[in-house]
Amino acid sequence: MDKYLETDEWKIIEEGFDPQRQRSSESIFSIGNGHMGQRANFEEHYSGDSLQGSYIGGIYYPDPTKVGWWKNGYPDYFAKVLNSVNWIGIDVYVNGEQLDLAECSVTDFTRTLDMKQGLLQRSFVAELQSGNKIAVEACRFVSMERTEVGVIEYKIKALNFSGTVKLAPYINGEVYNEDANYDEIFWDEGTQDSFDDGGVVTTKTKKLAFHVAAAMKNTVQKNGKSLDLEATASVSSMYVDQAYEISVEENDEVQLQKYAVVSSSLNHARKRLHSHTKQSVDDIAKVGFKQLKKEHTDRWLNIWKGSDVHIEGDDEAQQGIRFNIFQLYQTYTGEDERLNIGPKGFTGEKYGGCTYWDTEAYCLPFYLNTAPDKVARQLLWYRYRHLPKAIENAQKLGFTDGAALYPMVTMNGEECHNEWEITFEEVHRNGAIAYAIYNYIRHTGDESYLEEAGLEVLIAISRFWSQRFNFSEKRQKYVMLGVTGPNEYENNINNNWYTSYIACWCMRYTMEAIEKVRDESPEQFEEIRQKTSYDDAETEHWNDILDRVYLGEDEDLGIFLQQDNYLDKVQRTASELDKSERPINQHWSWDRILRSCFIKQGDVVQGLYFFEDHFDEDTIRRNFDFYEPRTVHESSLSPCIHAIVASKLGYSDKAYQLYLRTARLDLDDYNKEVHQGLHITSMAGTWMSIVEGFAGKRAKEGKLHFSPSLPDEWQAYSFKILHKGNRLNVRLEPEQVIITCEKGSGSTCYVYGEKYEISQDKEVIISAPVLSK
Amino acid sequence: MDKYLETDEWKIIEEGFDPQRQRSSESIFSIGNGHMGQRANFEEHYSGDSLQGSYIGGIYYPDPTKVGWWKNGYPDYFAKVLNSVNWIGIDVYVNGEQLDLAECSVTDFTRTLDMKQGLLQRSFVAELQSGNKIAVEACRFVSMERTEVGVIEYKIKALNFSGTVKLAPYINGEVYNEDANYDEIFWDEGTQDSFDDGGVVTTKTKKLAFHVAAAMKNTVQKNGKSLDLEATASVSSMYVDQAYEISVEENDEVQLQKYAVVSSSLNHARKRLHSHTKQSVDDIAKVGFKQLKKEHTDRWLNIWKGSDVHIEGDDEAQQGIRFNIFQLYQTYTGEDERLNIGPKGFTGEKYGGCTYWDTEAYCLPFYLNTAPDKVARQLLWYRYRHLPKAIENAQKLGFTDGAALYPMVTMNGEECHNEWEITFEEVHRNGAIAYAIYNYIRHTGDESYLEEAGLEVLIAISRFWSQRFNFSEKRQKYVMLGVTGPNEYENNINNNWYTSYIACWCMRYTMEAIEKVRDESPEQFEEIRQKTSYDDAETEHWNDILDRVYLGEDEDLGIFLQQDNYLDKVQRTASELDKSERPINQHWSWDRILRSCFIKQGDVVQGLYFFEDHFDEDTIRRNFDFYEPRTVHESSLSPCIHAIVASKLGYSDKAYQLYLRTARLDLDDYNKEVHQGLHITSMAGTWMSIVEGFAGKRAKEGKLHFSPSLPDEWQAYSFKILHKGNRLNVRLEPEQVIITCEKGSGSTCYVYGEKYEISQDKEVIISAPVLSK
Repeated sequence: MDKYLETDEWKIIEEGFDPQRQRSSESIFSIGNGHMGQRANFEEHYSGDSLQGSYIGGIYYPDPTKVGWWKNGYPDYFAKVLNSVNWIGIDVYVNGEQLDLAECSVTDFTRTLDMKQGLLQRSFVAELQSGNKIAVEACRFVSMERTEVGVIEYKIKALNFSGTVKLAPYINGEVYNEDANYDEIFWDEGTQDSFDDGGVVTTKTKKLAFHVAAAMKNTVQKNGKSLDLEATASVSSMYVDQAYEISVEENDEVQLQKYAVVSSSLNHARKRLHSHTKQSVDDIAKVGFKQLKKEHTDRWLNIWKGSDVHIEGDDEAQQGIRFNIFQLYQTYTGEDERLNIGPKGFTGEKYGGCTYWDTEAYCLPFYLNTAPDKVARQLLWYRYRHLPKAIENAQKLGFTDGAALYPMVTMNGEECHNEWEITFEEVHRNGAIAYAIYNYIRHTGDESYLEEAGLEVLIAISRFWSQRFNFSEKRQKYVMLGVTGPNEYENNINNNWYTSYIACWCMRYTMEAIEKVRDESPEQFEEIRQKTSYDDAETEHWNDILDRVYLGEDEDLGIFLQQDNYLDKVQRTASELDKSERPINQHWSWDRILRSCFIKQGDVVQGLYFFEDHFDEDTIRRNFDFYEPRTVHESSLSPCIHAIVASKLGYSDKAYQLYLRTARLDLDDYNKEVHQGLHITSMAGTWMSIVEGFAGKRAKEGKLHFSPSLPDEWQAYSFKILHKGNRLNVRLEPEQVIITCEKGSGSTCYVYGEKYEISQDKEVIISAPVLSK
Repeated sequence: MDKYLETDEWKIIEEGFDPQRQRSSESIFSIGNGHMGQRANFEEHYSGDSLQGSYIGGIYYPDPTKVGWWKNGYPDYFAKVLNSVNWIGIDVYVNGEQLDLAECSVTDFTRTLDMKQGLLQRSFVAELQSGNKIAVEACRFVSMERTEVGVIEYKIKALNFSGTVKLAPYINGEVYNEDANYDEIFWDEGTQDSFDDGGVVTTKTKKLAFHVAAAMKNTVQKNGKSLDLEATASVSSMYVDQAYEISVEENDEVQLQKYAVVSSSLNHARKRLHSHTKQSVDDIAKVGFKQLKKEHTDRWLNIWKGSDVHIEGDDEAQQGIRFNIFQLYQTYTGEDERLNIGPKGFTGEKYGGCTYWDTEAYCLPFYLNTAPDKVARQLLWYRYRHLPKAIENAQKLGFTDGAALYPMVTMNGEECHNEWEITFEEVHRNGAIAYAIYNYIRHTGDESYLEEAGLEVLIAISRFWSQRFNFSEKRQKYVMLGVTGPNEYENNINNNWYTSYIACWCMRYTMEAIEKVRDESPEQFEEIRQKTSYDDAETEHWNDILDRVYLGEDEDLGIFLQQDNYLDKVQRTASELDKSERPINQHWSWDRILRSCFIKQGDVVQGLYFFEDHFDEDTIRRNFDFYEPRTVHESSLSPCIHAIVASKLGYSDKAYQLYLRTARLDLDDYNKEVHQGLHITSMAGTWMSIVEGFAGKRAKEGKLHFSPSLPDEWQAYSFKILHKGNRLNVRLEPEQVIITCEKGSGSTCYVYGEKYEISQDKEVIISAPVLSK
């Protein structure tokens, strides 16, 4: 842990400039709008260590696979979200000397991320080597209202000199990815052009022919008055700038507004991209900074209305959860079905910006509860669009007859990952994708999704499971061999309880869904039947598996067996590990980790979380009591699930401890890796720890249930839930729960098992039981 | 299979020039002397596809590891034997036009590897684009007598023109490895120099500072008469040549002898390397081609005396086995304890020229029987020298107290391989290294090796095993989790019978060895005890493991269980596979292979081969009958072990079929990969199939046993065995075995269980039993 930033309810604040932390701060102060994102790189030239990063959702590159030892079946490439055109750059010269924070003396440096409004602000005083001093203020945002727009206001005040300030805003398409496997440059030159106070650069990817255009248009003032100044343009390959040379007296302030539009061939015809972008930047410059900013901040205020979590009496916790919610909405807004949520969002290159099962297992619940239903639906639809590729993927591995294996990591539906034990064997992801459909329906009550798309996905996934189990003549049971469960600290194991259990659930749920659609929409069903070549005979085999499946249990311990040989391992608990050994993934060789009983991330417990209604509380408790102490939580996705189950079991101290492990993971840089980018998907887990954990929120058959408890460390907390057109505010005080319907026609809720009708603007107050500790 | 070469008892012959096969022929016609080796690249310039390869034993490069996903514990580099200085090159110009077989019309092309004499010969007629025709004859060898010497004789006859022939022999140090992970050039410039009719180039590796010098000295004749010709030298970075311009009339023949010396800092002080090499080449040029050739061929004749296998009635088999013996002796002669046997020898880059368990499991038996004892001893000593590194290697994986894990792949004792399932888990290699000690002693009767070096190795290996087993509270047995057995088509399995069995044997054998050394050489023992900090208390734990170890068996089938879940797999036999699916490693995705019951290479059967005396024949038969049909033999090391066990069980057809699978593996390019190099280590397996298989040769307590049988396809066969100073010739005719002691004082042998005294030059004739088929 590394406490560095200031604590504030609504802001992230960095006081003082520390070049050592520049990469980390660039991650933390990233901004985005779900369509594009930008690390907090400086506008002005910076020669110090930095990870330049400007990303556009959906623009990726198939970087040829790099492996030491090829295994048959590996994908040929890893799809990487590209570092795209730099639209933020502004070169600054003071009497001919370039401003570069690595080369001058910097004081009064403050960087602020205003989460309420979605603004990145920065101010500092720089004394250049000449002794000339300037005060700089910069503000920028990526518009939530206009998805292709970024805006910067940049102000320079001459503190102790007269002379000239030159500002040269530019667009630069010559960028590269640090993580390129073979140092390849991914971009080719397109066109570049300057026009009055502006310029446009188009570039194109060397493969897949994504075209990107970025245009800028600038306005300049001195002391608040527009300057009618002739800018000098220079244009070269992939580059355009406009230089403004302004004479200043001491205390004069120069202001620049840089309006930028970044568009791509995802949304525009290639032929029209250049002209569209140029026209578009002209239009937004006319709208002006003030109005663009207002539209943008209004959008954020609206997002907060539906998603905020308010924690009283713990400012750090408050800041942490808002940061998480803020970053999630910067990453994904659900407007484009082609986009998804990479583990690092738009804040770094790691994991290639691809989609993992994180989306279904962690992010979906967040969006399901804080955004209109259509947002979660888009996430489901994303997988539906990829179904043909998932079927192809399964075919490559020898599966047949329409079985689908969704990829572990993907950008376009094709598999990108290349570790056999994960790529081919971490098949439980198929389960999470099916579960997401179920989860969506139980929350929204919207069963129409089944016939529209869900059933096709479910049938294909169930076909996969039915082929992935095999009948063991020896045991006279169906077994599932050679898988990796959610606990990636065991590989190529047999009969992973979680995977086998969710596989069985999938087949059962699919059969229910088949019956439901068949009954309720026979025509639609017939269409699906034909499309999928589904035959009722298939389910005979599914039922045979369900009848004779092997699901490991240990009767002595009363627990489910994570895998066949788990109890053959030397049994220790994480607390017995020496501090110097942790995290074990940095201190132990991989085989030692694999042989150990230590669990990276909940496995059996993940299953108990998904299917808590299938088990009595004692069963859940015995398994939690056994497995949690063996869990080292070295995945950022682990603690939240355990926090939720701990809350359910009344282990409130444990739940709070676990919640803390991810609440400020990035803000306090627990794992010393925030320089690589933020843990976007695990941020949803923190939200889950509060809402599903402390507040015990569940959805059953389209109805909401709560059984809230209050961590000792907090005075009160409240959160929003969007549900069937209603916006609820749920507030927990030490002795009561207060639920308000802020918007919508009202809702039926269950609190501690009792039913309540919540109607608009009327508080329902419920006494909270005193929990024994 | 791809029958292309001519069949001959003693020669490999290629008739006709096929550029498509150049890489393959370069592998097959490779020459070497155990210290250096050279692919059959052309002397003259060749612009067609070719893999240049000149290798010096022990000169390697730590090429930085290339992996997609790093696992903790991976080595930082892969040690690769280097493609070193090109000493064979001779540029040829005819009236100014360069000879290049890719650019002219080639007829009467013959390439011959004379295995009896160790000579590579080539002759052809080339019609150049000008229409000028020349006949070329080239002969080269790498001297078995003088380990740093290579010699070439190159003759050109002007067939239809007069004019000039220019010959420019050169040394070129600017070479690269095709398999460099990051396209790095591994060599730096040293010095280069020309002198009368010669030149020398020294180069040095960019890492580890290996220095290599190559010098040449040339003599030229026309029509057999020396020419007193002034050569023109040119010297540039890493390069020197000497050009001879000779005027010729039609039918004149020009002859060039190129003498080369290649030395390295392995054997000479860096400072003196240049001068030594220059002096040395001068000396050998004085010895002259004829004498050098005689010394060399005499050495080969001597090797054949001790190692030949003569097969009557099957010329292809005859050629195949001699090719294998020839290539083995070109790769390793046992003179230098620092050298070992890479799977491709000096014939290609694949596997980096490193040492694998192939050496102990396959090559050692070959050298043990065909070379003086000291050769096999060198192979053992190689591992003894690496013991400290093996202890370090184990420490990196968390083992303690002097436990040793020998590397999977190594050049200097450090691990090079980087697949976790192999690097960290294919630990059975430790067993083969211990077994080699036992094997050496049972053959030679030389127990002194134990106290000299063997016991230290055994103790360290047994310590590893004792830590690698863990006690399963659940089973109340010791188990060994997370290993990969010899069958690499299963990874990270539990209780691999082979590994656990050999581990137990190691501990038992080590304890016997401790008692033996303690009894017979108490002082020596005390020294070892102190050096290894050995304490008798250790063996209590070993004995506890031996008492309570879990070794899987299936009582219904009466077989040992390859691993815990083997019988949970769908059981099929290899014969049920469709042809289009084989080899499965080219047609199935890796996970499908892992989940299948198909075995790459003998696993349980490997154990039954090693420890056949521990089991009754029925047990061996049941296991063979079960596992062999499930074995796809996709490792070239697999068929030989099965052939031996099949022979033992009287499955003579099966044994012969299996023998055929490797007998001409490279000559007929079964796997379409001979262009990468030869399968040197599996060649020893072919020898084993004959001598241990068909001839049933065994060694027990220093005594030889035979129970020979004759494949139907052969009229007779005979082979040599070196044993305790005796050279035996064992000949099997249809109805009798004839054993002669060709050298030495005589020997006691057991044939079909009966004891015979074999004295020098007296044939012992034994009736062979008629075997029922």
